[in-house]
Amino acid sequence: MIVVMQKDANDEHIQAVIERMVELGFDVHRTSGAGQMMLAGVGTPAQFDVAEFQVLPGVFEAYRISSPYKLAGRSFRPDGTKITFPNGVVVGGDQVTIMAGPCSVESRDQILLSAQQVKAAGGQFLRGGAFKPRSSPYSFQGMGIEGLKLLREVGDITGLLIITEVMEIAQIEPMLPYIDCFQVGARNMQNFNLLRELGHVRKPVLLKRGISATIEEVLLSAEYILSGGNYDLMLCERGIRTFETYTRNTMDISAIPVLKKLTHLPVFGDPSHGVGKREFVPPMALASVAAGADGLLMEMHPNPDKAMSDGAQSLFPDQLNKLVDQLRQLAPVVGRNVA
Amino acid sequence: MIVVMQKDANDEHIQAVIERMVELGFDVHRTSGAGQMMLAGVGTPAQFDVAEFQVLPGVFEAYRISSPYKLAGRSFRPDGTKITFPNGVVVGGDQVTIMAGPCSVESRDQILLSAQQVKAAGGQFLRGGAFKPRSSPYSFQGMGIEGLKLLREVGDITGLLIITEVMEIAQIEPMLPYIDCFQVGARNMQNFNLLRELGHVRKPVLLKRGISATIEEVLLSAEYILSGGNYDLMLCERGIRTFETYTRNTMDISAIPVLKKLTHLPVFGDPSHGVGKREFVPPMALASVAAGADGLLMEMHPNPDKAMSDGAQSLFPDQLNKLVDQLRQLAPVVGRNVA
Amino acid sequence: MIVVMQKDANDEHIQAVIERMVELGFDVHRTSGAGQMMLAGVGTPAQFDVAEFQVLPGVFEAYRISSPYKLAGRSFRPDGTKITFPNGVVVGGDQVTIMAGPCSVESRDQILLSAQQVKAAGGQFLRGGAFKPRSSPYSFQGMGIEGLKLLREVGDITGLLIITEVMEIAQIEPMLPYIDCFQVGARNMQNFNLLRELGHVRKPVLLKRGISATIEEVLLSAEYILSGGNYDLMLCERGIRTFETYTRNTMDISAIPVLKKLTHLPVFGDPSHGVGKREFVPPMALASVAAGADGLLMEMHPNPDKAMSDGAQSLFPDQLNKLVDQLRQLAPVVGRNVA
Amino acid sequence: MIVVMQKDANDEHIQAVIERMVELGFDVHRTSGAGQMMLAGVGTPAQFDVAEFQVLPGVFEAYRISSPYKLAGRSFRPDGTKITFPNGVVVGGDQVTIMAGPCSVESRDQILLSAQQVKAAGGQFLRGGAFKPRSSPYSFQGMGIEGLKLLREVGDITGLLIITEVMEIAQIEPMLPYIDCFQVGARNMQNFNLLRELGHVRKPVLLKRGISATIEEVLLSAEYILSGGNYDLMLCERGIRTFETYTRNTMDISAIPVLKKLTHLPVFGDPSHGVGKREFVPPMALASVAAGADGLLMEMHPNPDKAMSDGAQSLFPDQLNKLVDQLRQLAPVVGRNVA
Repeated sequence: MIVVMQKDANDEHIQAVIERMVELGFDVHRTSGAGQMMLAGVGTPAQFDVAEFQVLPGVFEAYRISSPYKLAGRSFRPDGTKITFPNGVVVGGDQVTIMAGPCSVESRDQILLSAQQVKAAGGQFLRGGAFKPRSSPYSFQGMGIEGLKLLREVGDITGLLIITEVMEIAQIEPMLPYIDCFQVGARNMQNFNLLRELGHVRKPVLLKRGISATIEEVLLSAEYILSGGNYDLMLCERGIRTFETYTRNTMDISAIPVLKKLTHLPVFGDPSHGVGKREFVPPMALASVAAGADGLLMEMHPNPDKAMSDGAQSLFPDQLNKLVDQLRQLAPVVGRNVA
Repeated sequence: MIVVMQKDANDEHIQAVIERMVELGFDVHRTSGAGQMMLAGVGTPAQFDVAEFQVLPGVFEAYRISSPYKLAGRSFRPDGTKITFPNGVVVGGDQVTIMAGPCSVESRDQILLSAQQVKAAGGQFLRGGAFKPRSSPYSFQGMGIEGLKLLREVGDITGLLIITEVMEIAQIEPMLPYIDCFQVGARNMQNFNLLRELGHVRKPVLLKRGISATIEEVLLSAEYILSGGNYDLMLCERGIRTFETYTRNTMDISAIPVLKKLTHLPVFGDPSHGVGKREFVPPMALASVAAGADGLLMEMHPNPDKAMSDGAQSLFPDQLNKLVDQLRQLAPVVGRNVA
Repeated sequence: MIVVMQKDANDEHIQAVIERMVELGFDVHRTSGAGQMMLAGVGTPAQFDVAEFQVLPGVFEAYRISSPYKLAGRSFRPDGTKITFPNGVVVGGDQVTIMAGPCSVESRDQILLSAQQVKAAGGQFLRGGAFKPRSSPYSFQGMGIEGLKLLREVGDITGLLIITEVMEIAQIEPMLPYIDCFQVGARNMQNFNLLRELGHVRKPVLLKRGISATIEEVLLSAEYILSGGNYDLMLCERGIRTFETYTRNTMDISAIPVLKKLTHLPVFGDPSHGVGKREFVPPMALASVAAGADGLLMEMHPNPDKAMSDGAQSLFPDQLNKLVDQLRQLAPVVGRNVA
Repeated sequence: MIVVMQKDANDEHIQAVIERMVELGFDVHRTSGAGQMMLAGVGTPAQFDVAEFQVLPGVFEAYRISSPYKLAGRSFRPDGTKITFPNGVVVGGDQVTIMAGPCSVESRDQILLSAQQVKAAGGQFLRGGAFKPRSSPYSFQGMGIEGLKLLREVGDITGLLIITEVMEIAQIEPMLPYIDCFQVGARNMQNFNLLRELGHVRKPVLLKRGISATIEEVLLSAEYILSGGNYDLMLCERGIRTFETYTRNTMDISAIPVLKKLTHLPVFGDPSHGVGKREFVPPMALASVAAGADGLLMEMHPNPDKAMSDGAQSLFPDQLNKLVDQLRQLAPVVGRNVA
């Protein structure tokens, strides 16, 4: 940590700051000159709040200099994390992973047809919500456990892996038999109790960035899961909230290469939630992979106009086919490939 | 709902839109002129997604025109909601309610002293966290149930009501014996399962606005609680996330009069989280009441420099005293009073 | 400046950073420990770009520690700037200054009536646009020089001072005979050539915060005017752009106390542009003064429903009267008064 | 326009709204049902402010339904605008245009070497600032007219076209002899007087999106230039301001396909300002073209570490070479090519 004192700070102010730093476990080095004193705190106390120093009398500014995450940092695993699934699919390697499917599981016919279409297009994972977080209490809330069973069944039929959203701790245990990967939605990115529990589970997790979460906060949330011992973790950019309203969110494509630099975890893009309108999903999917994404998570529905949720951002099956073809051509430009 | 067709939309496009509107339960009226057709949907289907229409072929734009919340709307209770607590304190009436206390319960001594100071300053509620949502897994996570017991004890000693944060469904039941009001934090504003459960509880709830939640989303979250039958609900503006980083958040003071117009629910301001720095809390507290707030929720600590969390934004006890004195003078200007 | 090296930075990296710091005029102090080296640069080079260091090999993070503005800083004039106008009105003292009037000058009758109403309500300044920046080329663009003459005439009749917007350098000279104060609009806050010219003028200037400008950027823009020698400068918060769309902008009330701390310049609030809807202007005006504003800039029109621009956010004359009455009662609570 | 009345609106309210609509030139159609009346205004008045209706008594909501820009809309030129430059380079066709060069012209040697490197990499345009908008008055402000002469000279030597920023009306005339394309920077996107003048010039213009401008506002600013008769206009996404601070701005890649849909004008991406850090420029350049950009505007410097401005975001010459090679492979995937 570094504390810069105000020019008119007196000895008493300086002494109080030093004492607090020492109390927290820092070694303190003083540097003065040009009338302004800097105090450098060397060491890595388990926790401290830099804001506490910013309001001490005589302090001009205070900076935390070590990143507050450790296990999520790139230096923890410089070669990057690869996650191998039971059927041999590897996420985080050369191959770009395609996860697709409807927003919600609606019926056996709908989810089976979806799975067949995702498989035909070249996907590795089927997505589909059984528990749905909806902003209105009057909207469709999902099929629950019945939906999970259908997902498992059609996953087994098609050979696709199953990823679906977990919304609360009580759902973890019941979900385990049916799924291959937990998805934590944007609204739960800082549901720390849920994250902590997922750290103790032995199933991979895909953690979505919250719509107003900074990149650092994504990594701190990842740290919750990693620190519980679950290292099979993927991150996903899915759009942040800005002043622009033409698109549902503003997909922060730059977060993909930034995260690839800062962390060893695989990074996905979700262009469906990123833009919210079907026609812009393919260009944003291509952009995500061009920018270095390890995979894509996308909504597709056999009949989007009849979808019970998120129809407007769900691809038609033939759009998905065409997009995956383009991805196959594009991926090698950035040293990757699509199955 | 209103759908505006593109100038070059053909009969087939128009017919498809009309059919979908009728299917959802709308009566459809056509208006044409200047080459552009408008379709007005009259009626109030239980649910529909306006985005679905925005992507239909031939559609230029589509607007939902009814607000998606009903019970939260001002017209449901034009005179406003008043909540009467067991000790006779009324929230939502002429009196501005003061809730104050430390971020976390740290010890019996600390919370007792806090309570005495809040009481002396003129407060009606003691706040204090027993379960803490912390963005780092390495930070202090709260005293848990032990903290709740201490809150109750010092509440009884001082005659203050107790408000504290609930973070997940499993905490509701154990909290009931100890508290007078549940607080839902910003990070849980869209934890819909938690909101639904709180709708079935017979204790008042204070719901904080999420840091990236629109005013409409706050009201939709309120609707979750109200639709469960719990009408003793308060809302709280506590700062939104913007590009400005000098303050912890940007406190949207205008949300206070806007919410007072749109809903019948009492509206609080939380200047501590709004700005994050102690010295700016008093001006923002005054601004909140000047703008029409029904109450304030503020952090105060007997010794902020030693606080285990949020010390930088906690008032010193004498700052709270001085502030409440100013509030007593200011409130009558806007037709309110402070005890 | 402080540069923190990566843990694996080698001697060559460190040497390169030190050399660049010395080249810029810094004295460099090294602090090492826990495997991570910090380089503290002491001194105040005229200019440098901290981003340049952030991308040097081996650098973990770099911080500029001195504020990049000097003349605008509070320490330059600890007692605050007071601006005395020809008729004796003082801005920045105990009295809260009221500036009001229509968005645009539309006719002699309209602006004379406006002036009389502002005067009657207790205002000191008449505002009104002669040159209008409009986002659509098809909107009313203002009366130009003719409007300036009308402003001067009605200013002389009523004894009000005249403030109006300058949009480009070429307008400065023609405006001088007619006005008492230049207003720089939000869109021009970073029109640096215009600011530089206004630094050489001998008339006060009110500089509005840009809708996406940080507080630091406001002060840097102020520095442009101050460094030209014009110290009669006021700042004005008028709303920033956020994701919330219910209000036209989000008025950052906290910017008022923050600016009062950081700079010696008087700080105004403009609730009309802050919220954009008439009914929320009074609560936000009260909030601004409660938070410490030195004055208010507000839109009022004799007949807002017929205004040629910004009618929706213009107060009715009797709303202004009532508001100023409330301000008279509120100001003493925060140690100020209203004439 | 559509006006939706409140449920309790009375005949007087409705009549007042209708009269105002008629006054503006609308034909009004009434639709009622379910207790709520809608008034559809058919016609296209030259200008009106929808906010004016939103605050009329009895009005629930009001929507403008025609886009406020006309010449900029895609329907004005469904096949898209192609701009042919004197040397035969066509912007807006199959070929992706590469514009690159240093932030500022610093010396003849520097700009000549830059031009040679851009040419060698495969670029068509040399960029370089002669007039610099800098947020601090103490930063380097550009070489002015001398810089323009150098740009022209090295443009002629290498066969590159010259694009450079115009900051104010007075610079237009002196710039004409030296340049091939005017660039309007983000800070001037709403400098309407400047835009209007550029509408009367017979040189192409590249207009950058402001850091807080919506897509609609970009198109309205484009309309200013088009309505003056200058149709040789390009747009450029260069990052918007959000809460994320790791990158300089958040580059809104989705704005590229959205603009391609809404307007016929060519759309560029500027990844240098979009992210502000050199290492993330190549992935974002690739993402821009994958998303449909007609060209790229990028900063490159022969020696970025010694650049007088924006060094941190300037590519090294060999980075540009490698990037253009990748673009050559990527472009065909989206039906384009790179020279």
